Amino acid sequence: MTEKMVVTPWEVKGEIDYNRLIEKFGLQKMPKLPKDFDHYLFRRNIVFAQRDFNLILDAIKKGRPFGMMTGLMPSGKFHFGHKLVADQIIFYQKLGARVYIAVADIEAYCTRKPDLESLRNLAIEEYLVNYVALGLKPENCDFYFQSERSSKGKRASAYYSLANMFSMNATFSEFKAVYGKITPSKMSCSLLQASDMFHPQLPEFEGKIPVVVPVGVDQDPHIRLARDIARRSKFDFLKVASTYHTFMPGLKGGKMSSSDPNSYIALSDSPELAEKKIKKFAFSGGRATLEEHRKKGGIPEVDVAFQLLRYGLEPDDSNLKKIYDEYKSGRLLTSELKKIAIEKVKEFLKKHQLARERARKKVGKFLR
Amino acid sequence: MTEKMVVTPWEVKGEIDYNRLIEKFGLQKMPKLPKDFDHYLFRRNIVFAQRDFNLILDAIKKGRPFGMMTGLMPSGKFHFGHKLVADQIIFYQKLGARVYIAVADIEAYCTRKPDLESLRNLAIEEYLVNYVALGLKPENCDFYFQSERSSKGKRASAYYSLANMFSMNATFSEFKAVYGKITPSKMSCSLLQASDMFHPQLPEFEGKIPVVVPVGVDQDPHIRLARDIARRSKFDFLKVASTYHTFMPGLKGGKMSSSDPNSYIALSDSPELAEKKIKKFAFSGGRATLEEHRKKGGIPEVDVAFQLLRYGLEPDDSNLKKIYDEYKSGRLLTSELKKIAIEKVKEFLKKHQLARERARKKVGKFLR
Repeated sequence: MTEKMVVTPWEVKGEIDYNRLIEKFGLQKMPKLPKDFDHYLFRRNIVFAQRDFNLILDAIKKGRPFGMMTGLMPSGKFHFGHKLVADQIIFYQKLGARVYIAVADIEAYCTRKPDLESLRNLAIEEYLVNYVALGLKPENCDFYFQSERSSKGKRASAYYSLANMFSMNATFSEFKAVYGKITPSKMSCSLLQASDMFHPQLPEFEGKIPVVVPVGVDQDPHIRLARDIARRSKFDFLKVASTYHTFMPGLKGGKMSSSDPNSYIALSDSPELAEKKIKKFAFSGGRATLEEHRKKGGIPEVDVAFQLLRYGLEPDDSNLKKIYDEYKSGRLLTSELKKIAIEKVKEFLKKHQLARERARKKVGKFLR
Repeated sequence: MTEKMVVTPWEVKGEIDYNRLIEKFGLQKMPKLPKDFDHYLFRRNIVFAQRDFNLILDAIKKGRPFGMMTGLMPSGKFHFGHKLVADQIIFYQKLGARVYIAVADIEAYCTRKPDLESLRNLAIEEYLVNYVALGLKPENCDFYFQSERSSKGKRASAYYSLANMFSMNATFSEFKAVYGKITPSKMSCSLLQASDMFHPQLPEFEGKIPVVVPVGVDQDPHIRLARDIARRSKFDFLKVASTYHTFMPGLKGGKMSSSDPNSYIALSDSPELAEKKIKKFAFSGGRATLEEHRKKGGIPEVDVAFQLLRYGLEPDDSNLKKIYDEYKSGRLLTSELKKIAIEKVKEFLKKHQLARERARKKVGKFLR
């Protein structure tokens, strides 16, 4: 019955065995983290694996500068899956990271061809406004568009030229290994993505500091490719560190899909709509009958309402544990669990949407 | 005995039949030119073919803005072959063109890997100083480095992003058709070159104006490729116009080669060195014996001393005709013809090298 596990940047299916992925991709488990990392993402092993993360831990320990880089592909609404990344950005910013956020509009252009102006608006209204509402600060934050790295002096040129120079250190066969069928535009975007990850280390930006790129585990091929290209280059870069988070399930239990609004809760959904979606669509780990549920207990691991709580809506671990135990034992019913999740989501959305209004006035500071 | 004609960007050999090249590449002969084009390059059919040059003639006729774009690959010394291009740049600037000069340092980096700093110095000292000494003015002149398009506001991003967006409109097979074996770096450079040719038409630069790219006829595959890519793009560009000049022969009759200083006269060669080179190396169109020469006459078409005069050192057509006739009839001997060329070269170099000293003080104006 179980589908074969497939985890690539273009396809994720089957039951995901994260331990096997660690082995297959050659990742490392998360090391013991210092107390600064007392955050639900790390405590709950949502961020479960890494490459060269010791570079970051070491910088933090020694009070040395470090960076965090992430990219966003403006497409569709900002949902709880995106929030998982936003939470990491903001976490690292609070820890003192220089934050780099690339709007991958050239990549979007190269895959779907919409006009850059509407991509820009989407990136600001759906992503940046939510980041700011969730707590992103303009200080030490370089929010930029791949198509428009407009910054002082020689910085824009340095960013683009790095991508062009990286072309010397790449081969078609490795692009093919990562992308399957390779086209000129996939290659260009891939080189630009490598520059996104490594350009913070250029003298025109931060200089040689460790930079972490937190991604979903399906994105590891991109990380590997960029690291390989940079390693062969003339540039004396530190390896980009990376962390990997597990997949947050979509409402129906599968993946979230921007083409199916019932597969996710958007952070701009009204509290009422969110309630409706959870009631109607949230995949349940409960049993077929009340009797069976009381007897065998629910399965919180696959229950989307529980996972919503686990992926941040219930920040308190002991509360979460209590809910887990109650559900597992059969004392807590699906409808009751959903009710808890609904309360939390509604409370969050109400507060967040007020924060979004305030955030909208602040985005200008990020776009200078 | 005659070698097969080969004319590609990487190889030129055999006897060149320019009429066959016009046919083979699908070029047009030069149309009747207005009196503004009273310049040795056009009068002597050195610029012998074109694509869409009517766009430029039309703009000139109507007093509308037009541009001229050229690239230089910093390698070795600036010689009379390079002067042929410089003369065209300066000619168009005088005609009112907005001049764009790209230092193809990324391309140089991708082929020979030297460091960008020394490429930059070479481009300034060997190319820009000579351009300025020959008459290039800083007004309406955008002299830039591919690796450092540092200009105000969004211009740098617009230039690089055009190359990245062009990747959507290119196929591997057409790169292969032009380059033979294709590598990621050749592809990146080719896209950047297309942006060099077309970015002057972006709103961040001149807007939609006709732009002419004067090249040696062996460079036509690059022009064709860039035009094809731009035509398929979403950008509403005018076709880049191009003109083609014949090959100026090297001193020994073959090609000029930067690895053989006796194959060319550099504009920084001392007058004495130039004299020595012509005496010793200049390929002669004279006959084996004095008697035979007097009887059959010389062959000015292959005589390098004569060609030096034809490629600009003797600006007066009637003087040039006189020399041609005298040589052809056998009245003028090789040694006498060489003496005329030597006089002209020495006079030119003496004057030019003083101009270079003055020019060196002015290059800063081009590098802001």
